[in-house]
Amino acid sequence: MSTTATHALLLAGGGGGAKLAEGFAKALPPDALTIVVNTGDDEEFHGLHVSPDLDTVMYALAGLINPETGWGVKGDTLAALEMLERLGAPTWFRLGDRDLAVHVRRTQLLRQGWTLSKVTRELCARLGVRHQVVPMSDGPVRTRLITDAGELAFQEYFVRRRSEPRIRGVRYEGASAAMPSEAFLKALERANVLVFGPSNPVLSVGPVLALSGVRERIASFQGCRVAISPIIGGKTLKGPAAKNLTDLGEEPTAVGVARRYQGLCDIFVLDTEDLALARRVAALGFRVEVMPTVMATEEEKVALARRIFQMAGVG
Amino acid sequence: MSTTATHALLLAGGGGGAKLAEGFAKALPPDALTIVVNTGDDEEFHGLHVSPDLDTVMYALAGLINPETGWGVKGDTLAALEMLERLGAPTWFRLGDRDLAVHVRRTQLLRQGWTLSKVTRELCARLGVRHQVVPMSDGPVRTRLITDAGELAFQEYFVRRRSEPRIRGVRYEGASAAMPSEAFLKALERANVLVFGPSNPVLSVGPVLALSGVRERIASFQGCRVAISPIIGGKTLKGPAAKNLTDLGEEPTAVGVARRYQGLCDIFVLDTEDLALARRVAALGFRVEVMPTVMATEEEKVALARRIFQMAGVG
Repeated sequence: MSTTATHALLLAGGGGGAKLAEGFAKALPPDALTIVVNTGDDEEFHGLHVSPDLDTVMYALAGLINPETGWGVKGDTLAALEMLERLGAPTWFRLGDRDLAVHVRRTQLLRQGWTLSKVTRELCARLGVRHQVVPMSDGPVRTRLITDAGELAFQEYFVRRRSEPRIRGVRYEGASAAMPSEAFLKALERANVLVFGPSNPVLSVGPVLALSGVRERIASFQGCRVAISPIIGGKTLKGPAAKNLTDLGEEPTAVGVARRYQGLCDIFVLDTEDLALARRVAALGFRVEVMPTVMATEEEKVALARRIFQMAGVG
Repeated sequence: MSTTATHALLLAGGGGGAKLAEGFAKALPPDALTIVVNTGDDEEFHGLHVSPDLDTVMYALAGLINPETGWGVKGDTLAALEMLERLGAPTWFRLGDRDLAVHVRRTQLLRQGWTLSKVTRELCARLGVRHQVVPMSDGPVRTRLITDAGELAFQEYFVRRRSEPRIRGVRYEGASAAMPSEAFLKALERANVLVFGPSNPVLSVGPVLALSGVRERIASFQGCRVAISPIIGGKTLKGPAAKNLTDLGEEPTAVGVARRYQGLCDIFVLDTEDLALARRVAALGFRVEVMPTVMATEEEKVALARRIFQMAGVG
């Protein structure tokens, strides 16, 4: 096992990605980790810029995340939202009061000309998050779903329609013209392990891979690349990843996920429950590792992080 | 006493003006009243457009006003503000969660190109306010104080510095170029009674009078003009009106207030406590009426409103 100084680059959406980000942050010092977060599901609500995945990761690392929902701030209240509802604003996207404050602040700083990267750095610093949490891009990228119910903005599909419409395709609007953020580019150069978090390969990691030059840079990445399947036993712990793959005519299992990362990844991590899929994933050209990947506790998050570093030879 | 159909135009700031607005709204049907509100103390906080006087009047008429402070929403909470503070935003201007929602919504609609008049109409309608509450202008007017502590924006002076710095002068920035709002102009034509509410003559009514053409239009107003002194026994019930007059070398009594409205007003209402000033105010050319003007209860607000209409010959 090598003793190279670790620098990990974690690609994350909300949910599973945020949990693994917590484990990484507990296992590594701040300067050894860059967490690159999907911004394809950013949206404007009430004229405010909301970055759901960035916030989920930020709240998770700040110890503020609502453990019941997996998003939003624990103990948050809905006084402002109730007033917004009374004022006739659409309120299907549930924003707590503390959460709203974050969007208010972010929007103010963005309007002052700050990049989303700089805003995120500032918010994280204020909330005591010492590890680097960075948007995948400072350019506007918006994931849009082509569905049986017409083309939908991401949050329309995901929150308002509860991922129910069948999707026929996905557009990462603006992605091919959007540059990766500076910190993302730097981490792609500097990191010796790149990890695809257990996030939705279509909706969370898809937008990251669609950015200008990212697929090529990951294909030629110098270090070890590891992917964790967000689908276990044919089901997603949370979110529509399995359903999305089915809708798109792909296999709704870890094999379907692995196919999406072919040529971009060295090690594919299967949950012990999916041991039976090991041979098929290996046949796609991956080194396969099998281990418990469900992260219900803090210990499990850190344990998974450490095992990833070990298998990547950087632990 | 005439039986002309009443249409009242009330000029109001926050505080006393809002209380009288409540009395007017209880005494008159919606189409018989236009409440024109000072916007000189509007300010941007956290990138949001805050209209303190408009909100105070709106909350008062909606039955939402916090009776303890005389501003803000009763029972409001401070979860968002606490988070904004944690995020490093200046929070000396106390915004409750429900109040914040109003500013978020207002800002969103303004950015969509709505005028402040239209936004105010919408917010009022949503909160069940049926009487017309209108900004004095849709143009930007900002009251600025020239003080011993330098030039200060209104809220810097009024809230942050608690009106403590001595003022040497007042600038109503933008006022001479700002047109009165359409509804204000219409009410100036249509109303048969115009009332200067018991608001600060320098900081609340001053900006209204500084608008392009307003002084002239009030000077040639067709109906009866009535002013209620916000200073009783040499003191303001709330706010720095008496202190402002002193600072500016004027008399900090109802007489000082009356001097400001000379040529613009027919009837000057003194509180019974100020009976001794009646002769001096009359000498300035006013018809003087003396009556209780403190509005502690709803009954007192309505009673004062009715007495004003009666003395103006429109009740």
